[in-house]
Amino acid sequence: MATAGREFFTARTVADALREFRPGHRSTIETVRLDSAWGRVPAADIAAHEALPGFDRSSVDGYAVRASDTFGASEAIPAYLRVTAAVRMGEDADAQVTADAAVAVPTGGMLPPGADAVVMVEHTQEAMPGTIEVVRPVAPGEGVVRRDEDAAPGARLVSAGRPLRAQDLALLAAAGVSAVDVHAAPRVTIIPTGDEICPAGEAELPPGHVRDALTVSIGALAREAGGDPHGTAIVSDDPGALQDALELAVRDSDVIVICAGSSVGARDQTAAAVAALDHAEIWCHGLAIKPGKPTLLALIDGIPVIGLPGNPRSALVVFRLIGMPVVRRVGGWTVELHPASVRARLSRDLASAAGRLDVVQVRLHEGEAEPLFGPSALLSVLTAADGYMVVAQDATGLAAGAEVEVFLYV
Amino acid sequence: MATAGREFFTARTVADALREFRPGHRSTIETVRLDSAWGRVPAADIAAHEALPGFDRSSVDGYAVRASDTFGASEAIPAYLRVTAAVRMGEDADAQVTADAAVAVPTGGMLPPGADAVVMVEHTQEAMPGTIEVVRPVAPGEGVVRRDEDAAPGARLVSAGRPLRAQDLALLAAAGVSAVDVHAAPRVTIIPTGDEICPAGEAELPPGHVRDALTVSIGALAREAGGDPHGTAIVSDDPGALQDALELAVRDSDVIVICAGSSVGARDQTAAAVAALDHAEIWCHGLAIKPGKPTLLALIDGIPVIGLPGNPRSALVVFRLIGMPVVRRVGGWTVELHPASVRARLSRDLASAAGRLDVVQVRLHEGEAEPLFGPSALLSVLTAADGYMVVAQDATGLAAGAEVEVFLYV
Repeated sequence: MATAGREFFTARTVADALREFRPGHRSTIETVRLDSAWGRVPAADIAAHEALPGFDRSSVDGYAVRASDTFGASEAIPAYLRVTAAVRMGEDADAQVTADAAVAVPTGGMLPPGADAVVMVEHTQEAMPGTIEVVRPVAPGEGVVRRDEDAAPGARLVSAGRPLRAQDLALLAAAGVSAVDVHAAPRVTIIPTGDEICPAGEAELPPGHVRDALTVSIGALAREAGGDPHGTAIVSDDPGALQDALELAVRDSDVIVICAGSSVGARDQTAAAVAALDHAEIWCHGLAIKPGKPTLLALIDGIPVIGLPGNPRSALVVFRLIGMPVVRRVGGWTVELHPASVRARLSRDLASAAGRLDVVQVRLHEGEAEPLFGPSALLSVLTAADGYMVVAQDATGLAAGAEVEVFLYV
Repeated sequence: MATAGREFFTARTVADALREFRPGHRSTIETVRLDSAWGRVPAADIAAHEALPGFDRSSVDGYAVRASDTFGASEAIPAYLRVTAAVRMGEDADAQVTADAAVAVPTGGMLPPGADAVVMVEHTQEAMPGTIEVVRPVAPGEGVVRRDEDAAPGARLVSAGRPLRAQDLALLAAAGVSAVDVHAAPRVTIIPTGDEICPAGEAELPPGHVRDALTVSIGALAREAGGDPHGTAIVSDDPGALQDALELAVRDSDVIVICAGSSVGARDQTAAAVAALDHAEIWCHGLAIKPGKPTLLALIDGIPVIGLPGNPRSALVVFRLIGMPVVRRVGGWTVELHPASVRARLSRDLASAAGRLDVVQVRLHEGEAEPLFGPSALLSVLTAADGYMVVAQDATGLAAGAEVEVFLYV
């Protein structure tokens, strides 16, 4: 039963939900190879166990020198240096650089002993075979990447909680890290409900039936958030059946999503079924958002449960705003994702009731955002949209021509 | 050999490359199930083969009525209607709605014959058992989703060339489409080269060697762009060996990426190896970008070849800007991807040479963008960055406090 003291069947704002509905549950930890680690979330910081790049390296094509031998060099009075050897890529640089001598070195080649700088080949010319003129001075360290300049031993290479980006994998590979402990993809169990729902694959529908559009599409959003979605069989509009499905789901899920029936009765049944379970805590029943008001947020045994509104379009809107952050959090994310957006001018006046967040689908055309309307049962409004905009909870509307931020779907 | 008339070993601008280096080659087409189709690119438009939702449906909880029976209804003078039946979810609505009668119907329920509107339950009250008062008129069609309102038979559900989004999958599922013809993930072959390169897994490095940081990280970017990356064995700095590797790669690749050596000699060898092949066409050798100048773009037998600069950091910058759009195009994308970005104030003056595009790594802190500098060999500059900004080719710098667009890495 719901914990005493918690508000029960209470509507909340979206801002509250994002700030306060933050389940402590985390997915398990597993080890993955680096080539499967893109986008995965490290469970702990990873430190360098050795210096990177590991040896002093030339950062230019040129000549390794003692910098002091080039001090005062100019076009008019060049420094003359004997070229005593050449470093080859991928080989030990064993030729010592002595006073007034230089050793040729390619970009990325090892700095030979005795040298403390590399003169770019562009700042030299051959005076005679075996001797170069240096026409510009170099400072000590110039043209050189120090042996620990990319990472000192013990330095943090990547941080826990931030999904691995391409450059993170590059640095880990360079540092000899070939496997990473990451959060497992949260197991997201999607429970479709409703007497009118048939499996998506059904070719012929009985009268009054529609196909399950949510298991595959909420699953796609769950996957986009790093989750591993699984749909259950369709549950009829029966509190006992939903309770059974929830009891089963809570055993092997990190997040549970209920695609509720669309009628008032079906919605109330969802809340009742959750509330009837042991260790269930209803955090809110009702969100100040349009579309999406009949959203339920709860915990069962610490596992977050998201009861989506019955209309598929509302369900997709709510899961994108509220569900995806929950999946990411359970999957170990500690950073915020900033969705892609563009600024556009609103094409027409837009009314909005104060006291709720309005999510408005828009089509973009030459810098203009055209709001799309239609019953919230219609999926075609969502598929026609290039993105969505949000009208803040305290706003009563926006005027045509207002600059708005449109969050993009691709 | 390169086609006569094409410029050979010519530097180009990034804008030119994005506009003009547009290979015609496309990956093959395969059929995938809907639950694996998220982000995949349809090879052709998909049309509805039946009306959606397929029957007239109530969009509210209420009473199906003849709208004309409610005309003029008000709180003061309600319309009285007999409730003759109730429609159940997922069942055929067979009770006819006659004059001055109403049939109860839930949200999503089938509109019973004879009715042309649904009065919301909130606009009714029970006058006596079996009779309701309707206190507001409804117009014909109100409270109803028409049988073909989400899609008429033959209407386009999704477009070729635009990656499938969650809502597209929802609409396809609703329409009974269970598999989609999509472009196969472009096979991206990554060829690491350089005498100094060891496989990433190597625990102990010989003197002067570094690990291959690019196969895994360019692979991650290729995957992010929808590709299927495969690394080859490391190729030594030898034109013959690279030619052999290219000849092999061109047979089963949709995009080829060469991670070139970093020295001038190694870079020239890459171009020479490509140019020496049959049906090779070098589109540019040199891009007006920093970092990334020694970029090579070419076609071999129509397959795009991207020769990346030798420094891992430059290579990642160039592949993100130039390579990922090529992978997406080959994979059938016909829309542009708009990367996530934020606006920020530049924390300091930033010099830039005109005539090249500068890509500057930045760290974000409280709305300020702090440029990060360091030799282009350093990966740690990239891993420390939250995103990057671009200084336009004709700009000579930006002043502290200027508003800049920062493209985000997460």
